[in-house]
Amino acid sequence: MSYERANIRRMQGYTPGKQPQNADTIKLNTNENPYAPSPQVFEVLRHIGPDMLRRYPEPLATEFRSEAARLHGVKPEQIVAVNGGDELLRLALTTFVEPGQPIGVLSPSYSLYPVLAAIQDSPVISVTAGADYSLPSELAARMNAAAVNLTLLVNPHAPSGRLETRETISGIARELKGVLLVDEAYVDFVAPDRRHNLLPLLEEHDNILLLRTLSKGYSLAGLRYGYGIGSEGLIAPLLGKTRDSYNVDAIAQRVATAALRDQAHARLSWERVRNERTRVRRALAALGFAALDSQTNFLLASVPEQLRAAEVQRELEARGILVRYFAEPPLDRSLRITIGTPEENDRLLRELAQLSAP
Amino acid sequence: MSYERANIRRMQGYTPGKQPQNADTIKLNTNENPYAPSPQVFEVLRHIGPDMLRRYPEPLATEFRSEAARLHGVKPEQIVAVNGGDELLRLALTTFVEPGQPIGVLSPSYSLYPVLAAIQDSPVISVTAGADYSLPSELAARMNAAAVNLTLLVNPHAPSGRLETRETISGIARELKGVLLVDEAYVDFVAPDRRHNLLPLLEEHDNILLLRTLSKGYSLAGLRYGYGIGSEGLIAPLLGKTRDSYNVDAIAQRVATAALRDQAHARLSWERVRNERTRVRRALAALGFAALDSQTNFLLASVPEQLRAAEVQRELEARGILVRYFAEPPLDRSLRITIGTPEENDRLLRELAQLSAP
Repeated sequence: MSYERANIRRMQGYTPGKQPQNADTIKLNTNENPYAPSPQVFEVLRHIGPDMLRRYPEPLATEFRSEAARLHGVKPEQIVAVNGGDELLRLALTTFVEPGQPIGVLSPSYSLYPVLAAIQDSPVISVTAGADYSLPSELAARMNAAAVNLTLLVNPHAPSGRLETRETISGIARELKGVLLVDEAYVDFVAPDRRHNLLPLLEEHDNILLLRTLSKGYSLAGLRYGYGIGSEGLIAPLLGKTRDSYNVDAIAQRVATAALRDQAHARLSWERVRNERTRVRRALAALGFAALDSQTNFLLASVPEQLRAAEVQRELEARGILVRYFAEPPLDRSLRITIGTPEENDRLLRELAQLSAP
Repeated sequence: MSYERANIRRMQGYTPGKQPQNADTIKLNTNENPYAPSPQVFEVLRHIGPDMLRRYPEPLATEFRSEAARLHGVKPEQIVAVNGGDELLRLALTTFVEPGQPIGVLSPSYSLYPVLAAIQDSPVISVTAGADYSLPSELAARMNAAAVNLTLLVNPHAPSGRLETRETISGIARELKGVLLVDEAYVDFVAPDRRHNLLPLLEEHDNILLLRTLSKGYSLAGLRYGYGIGSEGLIAPLLGKTRDSYNVDAIAQRVATAALRDQAHARLSWERVRNERTRVRRALAALGFAALDSQTNFLLASVPEQLRAAEVQRELEARGILVRYFAEPPLDRSLRITIGTPEENDRLLRELAQLSAP
């Protein structure tokens, strides 16, 4: 006998990217940072003591939130720590979306959004991005017309890598009647000369919720640690009501705080990724794999006319290199390729040169 | 402007027990294990490497689930790992309870249950326990009559410490039309001569979901790690649909696996706690603080006639000892006191002797 709710029975779960547990595979499929986390992280791990573990953690992650607040120039009351960015996405639905009420997304986007909507038994109002993956001008109007109270955007966008400016995001937030969650998972990799920063928007817009994660920028995907930044009114129910009381554990709180504090280490990895991003994009173009300009740690590269993306993905996998293929148009002519170390990228480029040789 | 759902705006969040971050306080208020976790745990922490952290964790916690399955003689498909037991409680509501549909609880019980219900906008069908905190015989009938699809029980019971037998639980599961979640947070502390074991019930009842946690029995409250055990049909949607894809991090998976493997270490702590439980209960009785028989790592001790429980709690806190006071009748004449180390218990008994001296 099945005890599930009808909508849960009907829905499909999320399929995470492949996570082989062997060290040899070159993983360019899930946008992990190719460089090690801060040495301070391992220092922290060496000093975890018995009392830290046998006692409950500090429920509000106060030290981490203070550190994040200092880094971003906001108040600790504007920060909520979460068990990976995915938790903030779920909490946003729980907190701001009535069961059955629609959520708004751009298409294509993060494939977890429709899964979270299905759990909430909520329809998805999906607005199709421009051919260059830009935000359509009617986005906010469409969401308002459908009584959407939560719109989810990734900026820089995944899987294209495109960055929308602060002005564009501000215009949407102003027009939207509901909450605008901007998933900034990749924001650390934006080129400094773009002078991109959404934080000042929080002073004008009480409906913007920014999502940050330590998974990519701080090389800590294994730790599951992210945080939300927003107005105090938006953060308060997440922090005090809908979050599991001890959602981030004692080890993770300390590791995340140490990683965030070591900005110099993280920034160096961002710079190295950006340098490789420029080099790899040029090299891919020379092989016929044209990629859009990307402000993330990945490239969305279209495959040459004579090749099929799915096949290239399989061939690379057979050679020990994982990249991400999406079967849905318009993505099905492209591959999403994470920027690896120079050596990993060279391996990828060599294999692609062979695969695309006439 | 407020963007919250109306039910979230109305509700009160959960208040965790006090978690002072200083080492001097004697914490007998949140049922933590007074002994250190397995040395294997620290061994694991010393060997966390960069790749383990920069890559996503194994999404299904496969190694941990195999270990737990082996320990309990069930299949890995019958286990779901969670970020603390609270996550399984939340997931059970998300998966089995339609928004607005009632949940069933015994009163008194874990004060998180009504909070989870409020988040789901669900009423709480509360059946009052007997004077000895026993389960009333009409419990299942009451739940069925109210169309409850999820009933939550803690066994051994908190805050009384009372253990219901397998036969009693089996009878309720058979009668219930919905899911019976049995929170076994304290089961590790049951006296071996009780020969208590609910696992065989899983073969007869597809609606029983057992909740285990490493917080108490394995001295890892700081780690946030628990798991659910049930029929494959009950576990499947939790594992594959409603759970956040990476709900338990890479460090926690390894630490938890190591702790579970070191049964000898954990069992020794359970035995020490049981021995102290017997001694402290007798000593409390001699001071006029009668406690019920407890199969947990705490005692629910009534305060002598001439004292008030709230005042005793405050006096103890002023002396650096935290215990738990509940303001709601019938608990307001008692204190819930966690079993500490012999030294901590001696300190408690000395202070209580002073406070209750005529």
